[in-house]
Amino acid sequence: MDQVRVGMVGYKFMGKAHSNAYRAAPMFFPNITKPVMKAICGRDPQGVEQARSQFGWESVETDWRELVKRDDIDLVDINAPSDAHKEIALAAAAAGKHLFCEKPLALTLADSREMLEAAEKAGVKHMVGFNYRFAPAVQLAKKLIEEGRLGQIYHFRAWFLQDWIIDPSFPLVWRLQKEIAGSGSHGDLGAHLIDMARFLVGEFSEVIGMSETFVKQRPMPSAMTGLSAKGDANAPLGDVTVDDATLFMTRFENGALGSFEATRFAAGHRCTNSFEINGSKGSVKFDFERLNELQVYFTDDAPDVQGFRRVLATDAAHAYMDAWWPAGHTIGYEHTFTHEIVELMQALSEDRQPVPNFVDGVKCQEVLEAVDRSIEQRRWVSIEEM
Amino acid sequence: MDQVRVGMVGYKFMGKAHSNAYRAAPMFFPNITKPVMKAICGRDPQGVEQARSQFGWESVETDWRELVKRDDIDLVDINAPSDAHKEIALAAAAAGKHLFCEKPLALTLADSREMLEAAEKAGVKHMVGFNYRFAPAVQLAKKLIEEGRLGQIYHFRAWFLQDWIIDPSFPLVWRLQKEIAGSGSHGDLGAHLIDMARFLVGEFSEVIGMSETFVKQRPMPSAMTGLSAKGDANAPLGDVTVDDATLFMTRFENGALGSFEATRFAAGHRCTNSFEINGSKGSVKFDFERLNELQVYFTDDAPDVQGFRRVLATDAAHAYMDAWWPAGHTIGYEHTFTHEIVELMQALSEDRQPVPNFVDGVKCQEVLEAVDRSIEQRRWVSIEEM
Amino acid sequence: MDQVRVGMVGYKFMGKAHSNAYRAAPMFFPNITKPVMKAICGRDPQGVEQARSQFGWESVETDWRELVKRDDIDLVDINAPSDAHKEIALAAAAAGKHLFCEKPLALTLADSREMLEAAEKAGVKHMVGFNYRFAPAVQLAKKLIEEGRLGQIYHFRAWFLQDWIIDPSFPLVWRLQKEIAGSGSHGDLGAHLIDMARFLVGEFSEVIGMSETFVKQRPMPSAMTGLSAKGDANAPLGDVTVDDATLFMTRFENGALGSFEATRFAAGHRCTNSFEINGSKGSVKFDFERLNELQVYFTDDAPDVQGFRRVLATDAAHAYMDAWWPAGHTIGYEHTFTHEIVELMQALSEDRQPVPNFVDGVKCQEVLEAVDRSIEQRRWVSIEEM
Amino acid sequence: MDQVRVGMVGYKFMGKAHSNAYRAAPMFFPNITKPVMKAICGRDPQGVEQARSQFGWESVETDWRELVKRDDIDLVDINAPSDAHKEIALAAAAAGKHLFCEKPLALTLADSREMLEAAEKAGVKHMVGFNYRFAPAVQLAKKLIEEGRLGQIYHFRAWFLQDWIIDPSFPLVWRLQKEIAGSGSHGDLGAHLIDMARFLVGEFSEVIGMSETFVKQRPMPSAMTGLSAKGDANAPLGDVTVDDATLFMTRFENGALGSFEATRFAAGHRCTNSFEINGSKGSVKFDFERLNELQVYFTDDAPDVQGFRRVLATDAAHAYMDAWWPAGHTIGYEHTFTHEIVELMQALSEDRQPVPNFVDGVKCQEVLEAVDRSIEQRRWVSIEEM
Repeated sequence: MDQVRVGMVGYKFMGKAHSNAYRAAPMFFPNITKPVMKAICGRDPQGVEQARSQFGWESVETDWRELVKRDDIDLVDINAPSDAHKEIALAAAAAGKHLFCEKPLALTLADSREMLEAAEKAGVKHMVGFNYRFAPAVQLAKKLIEEGRLGQIYHFRAWFLQDWIIDPSFPLVWRLQKEIAGSGSHGDLGAHLIDMARFLVGEFSEVIGMSETFVKQRPMPSAMTGLSAKGDANAPLGDVTVDDATLFMTRFENGALGSFEATRFAAGHRCTNSFEINGSKGSVKFDFERLNELQVYFTDDAPDVQGFRRVLATDAAHAYMDAWWPAGHTIGYEHTFTHEIVELMQALSEDRQPVPNFVDGVKCQEVLEAVDRSIEQRRWVSIEEM
Repeated sequence: MDQVRVGMVGYKFMGKAHSNAYRAAPMFFPNITKPVMKAICGRDPQGVEQARSQFGWESVETDWRELVKRDDIDLVDINAPSDAHKEIALAAAAAGKHLFCEKPLALTLADSREMLEAAEKAGVKHMVGFNYRFAPAVQLAKKLIEEGRLGQIYHFRAWFLQDWIIDPSFPLVWRLQKEIAGSGSHGDLGAHLIDMARFLVGEFSEVIGMSETFVKQRPMPSAMTGLSAKGDANAPLGDVTVDDATLFMTRFENGALGSFEATRFAAGHRCTNSFEINGSKGSVKFDFERLNELQVYFTDDAPDVQGFRRVLATDAAHAYMDAWWPAGHTIGYEHTFTHEIVELMQALSEDRQPVPNFVDGVKCQEVLEAVDRSIEQRRWVSIEEM
Repeated sequence: MDQVRVGMVGYKFMGKAHSNAYRAAPMFFPNITKPVMKAICGRDPQGVEQARSQFGWESVETDWRELVKRDDIDLVDINAPSDAHKEIALAAAAAGKHLFCEKPLALTLADSREMLEAAEKAGVKHMVGFNYRFAPAVQLAKKLIEEGRLGQIYHFRAWFLQDWIIDPSFPLVWRLQKEIAGSGSHGDLGAHLIDMARFLVGEFSEVIGMSETFVKQRPMPSAMTGLSAKGDANAPLGDVTVDDATLFMTRFENGALGSFEATRFAAGHRCTNSFEINGSKGSVKFDFERLNELQVYFTDDAPDVQGFRRVLATDAAHAYMDAWWPAGHTIGYEHTFTHEIVELMQALSEDRQPVPNFVDGVKCQEVLEAVDRSIEQRRWVSIEEM
Repeated sequence: MDQVRVGMVGYKFMGKAHSNAYRAAPMFFPNITKPVMKAICGRDPQGVEQARSQFGWESVETDWRELVKRDDIDLVDINAPSDAHKEIALAAAAAGKHLFCEKPLALTLADSREMLEAAEKAGVKHMVGFNYRFAPAVQLAKKLIEEGRLGQIYHFRAWFLQDWIIDPSFPLVWRLQKEIAGSGSHGDLGAHLIDMARFLVGEFSEVIGMSETFVKQRPMPSAMTGLSAKGDANAPLGDVTVDDATLFMTRFENGALGSFEATRFAAGHRCTNSFEINGSKGSVKFDFERLNELQVYFTDDAPDVQGFRRVLATDAAHAYMDAWWPAGHTIGYEHTFTHEIVELMQALSEDRQPVPNFVDGVKCQEVLEAVDRSIEQRRWVSIEEM
């Protein structure tokens, strides 16, 4: 298979993330089958056209029913709002398209089972978007566990902490309304923790939970707005119908104990998605805010030098990393260049010199050579003398 | 100006970094002038054609003299080996092209001055590739200094630590040969520190340095190879002609004191590019291995809660960040999706289910709803019962 | 009141900790009422006499019944094994002595209530040994909460992680036997977390827990031994009758949610006693392994410099710290001198020069003055020339 | 030798630190020769008597000439101001006393040499107070180097950063006057770094330095005051005659390169005494603000888990630590008990209940047992029901 022709439904946060991935994957991993960005679909013609142009899709659809029918599409990527997932997935499966659906698969367990059955019946491939599995540091945790290097797993503890709705005047956006979002922190954040636990530790056996909505009413937003919406103090209040925070404990099938916390009320945590695993031979810790790092401990290290190692998962020994940059260059490094090009383009369009420019290059060289001279001549060298 | 047509000379590490930036910039910053990836240039026809296809350039040149003559090129991007910078830049300037040149501008101060003069005489725009300035955390440091929030600067200390040539059997690659690389750790790593110091603190007044080549002879490589080259124990030895480590101290024009260290012999440091600045009102610390963070201290914080703050520079208040993801999502986050697409493409080409798939979506939903039920019914709920 | 005459029952781990505190308190806090170390009590005459001599008590008792009767005792300090607390406390209270009892107060709630009633009836003062409250960093957390600087508390999460019994061949010491220890990780470690939560957040409303004994049988020890006991692989096995790990969730009376985990099976954690509190105006984090630090976040910091501050709680602004050392000198610093004196005493008794000695003092001075000269003369100075 | 009878000259910061060490050493290290605290000496009769009482010395002297003559003194401990060291040491040596002298040994190299010669001629033992060597984490660094586990040393970099005189209105205390203090940050802080370098890396070969006095005049203090002195804005100004900051570079005899920085102008650093060493087989990092930790890296760790280990140097495998507490309990832990005793003594003298008291013990037990019940009965249990 030479290429996979993609049609994508949705063009907001996740649409942007997926588009970027379709563009970046073949550039850094040239040997994979190439995704072709055939069509992007959304209801608002103007919005979707702008997304098409910005993200680099070939064409536009405004009705997903049309999209799933197209002959030149092999794979349907569904990242529309969660309440639309099922209908689209069922139609796409019926049309024989492979499926890539953002999490949560659906608003209810029943719906998600229906989707799985439909995909299986249609014999298509199906993927769900638990993206955090794909951080190289997480892949390293998986590898250590699979190779038995952590031994028998005793504990998993995880928390996904955010703070974007702490302010009680933050408006009642769609993510705070059960009928659209399905769930609050539990489904939005907890779902990622659950998948991480299943990926690394295994299946759950039983659970017990607790949840709370700390701020029970909020100002109605003037329009359906995103995460950055500002509240209107004079707006009428509406009921928050999802959880602000949900905690639960679990026993895994393999006997490990787990604890989970998802909250949007943890001041100082923009997006702390973190876990720790303790086994009979070692432990690992991960924090998404330090995406490139895994903390690793082994019980059989020499007694005088036992301690958690901070592994920067950017070596060739780490999953995916030989496709990127030399060791020590984190994922993310590449965008110092992106911003550099932004400066360059802005300078050119404003008919000014970009910064830094050749003057900075020369001045840097002055210092470099002054240092060289100071070494040769074993004396202080002034820059002026250069 | 609608667009800028780019011709790029070089297609290795930096060529890849620049190509990625030309692709990513207009996607995340749709309002900037759009760079058009017109032509990529390199001497090896096969190599450059593969780069063209992988990186997404429109055409290929194998002689940079041809490239700089092309009418459909506005900007020449020079990231060929450093010893070729000057000749290309001079020709491109003469042809009236804008210039974007990787650091170091040239192998010598004299050469770099010649390049600056040529660019000025031609009246073209010129940029030099000190990319680390463009990390949002570094931009935040700059902002704090410019707004006077750190007060008068007393100290700048910086170190760029690597460890890729600690092994004495690592071969004598071109970066260890003065005639090609010009300099060792000093020009390669120290140059970045010098630029950072100039960007944040100001001009240098005087310097004194010290350097060392710890491993003075190394096995000759069988071919000119990259950073990851493996040495051949039986190969003949050649002289290392650049510095393994260079340290220097400086006095800045504004009275601040500076210390600098660049080394390739710091075990455990793949790429620690780090600085600290102390001023009369506060301090900042940065470490490139934690690209998204700046440590910030203010002397006027309340006496009982003074301490370095770990600022995750991913809020809308930070430079460039409103173009990216919601607060707390680091630069780099986006590539969890890139790897996800790699898995999806591989699964499709291998005719297997990708992982995670809808089964994982269903199982996650089972746990979510079991927790919901346990909360409603205030009891332990087994997954089986779902 | 000029002084308080103390009689102490117990002379192991806690007896040593208490003795040290009686010695250190009046030295660093000269204005407090002075504790007088009257008598130390234990059943083994030889053991208790050695403790008396080592710890600096005036006299010895081998029967606590005698101790509590003594006229020259004002305060009875009880740090004998937990199963003896009640009987001693009741007798001491009846004798009109003030009480200082290590945690847990007793093995059961009923017993602890009986002790409280006895103390109240006798009209004596009573203290319980939750020592972690007294870290200056914890006192700072308390102060921030009491002053309303964290706002309304939403979340408390805490974990006390150890790893000293991960090895299945570690023997069945008394701490793993319910009839002596009363409880495992729950009572030993969890009790500290519960007290911390009550101290900082307030009273509990309801709880639900989960626990596990991962290693269900262990080799019988040859004698009742301490934490460092080595197991005998050929010893007969006995049942572990306490929990290895206990987790629970809680709702506090003020509406905050809490999660707690105590375990002795967390590889890499010798003694991680850690908590985090999130409120409407800020957050704090504490980890006992970094005893002198509190991480503090405020929601009203300027938008571009929000982040957790690492407060080193060693300033005069912090509780107890003006009695100690200059700012930045952690609690613990003083024992670099203790070890220095150990070296000095050993050297004197072995009739050898201690290290470092005056030779080191001279050589240090050589370098200091060589640097001075290099500054004056603006040149490299060799040490030889000094 | 059963005991060593000590006479100490000086009773301020260092006098307190030494006194505490003489008290703590025999308690935690009962097998060492016991120091007997015979006499404390200072010029101010009232001050020295108060110190005697507080620190626990047997007697007082107000003239060190008397002290060094006493027959009942074996060892003279000199921690008077630095400019008095020489005279005292020479007299004490002449009287056949062993010597323990705080750093710096003397104000000049010539003086320190004279002291060494006097001690050698008298045949007495002599020690100098470089206390940082005695942190167990530093001892671990030494052990790793001596055992060859870091290989050949390439780099040593160290900095001692403080911020106590950043405020220009901080007064001109004696530490800022050359005739009394001898030196500023260089002699006070740099001396510790130099000794650490000599201890861990070896002898210096050559140096070059740079220094600065950022604030050149300061208000005269009303009296000779300590570190915490507050300045008087209206006081007349006097010249600061010592360095605020001194940096230098060095080449060690073994070929390693070193860089050093000592400053009192590093905002946010109360007492950051930190070093890093890079060798051919590994690296170590130490920061005195985290006294109990050493970061350790080995080049021969498995390729996928290479990283700096955070070793908490509190295990029995670490120097001095088996004399203290169970693993994971840092040096410093013991003073949570000291503060607890302070609370207890204060409560007794104020005739109030100490906090926490038996009520807290009971309430903790309530929660513990409620959790137990919730586990047994697999349900939520309210505290009220207990």
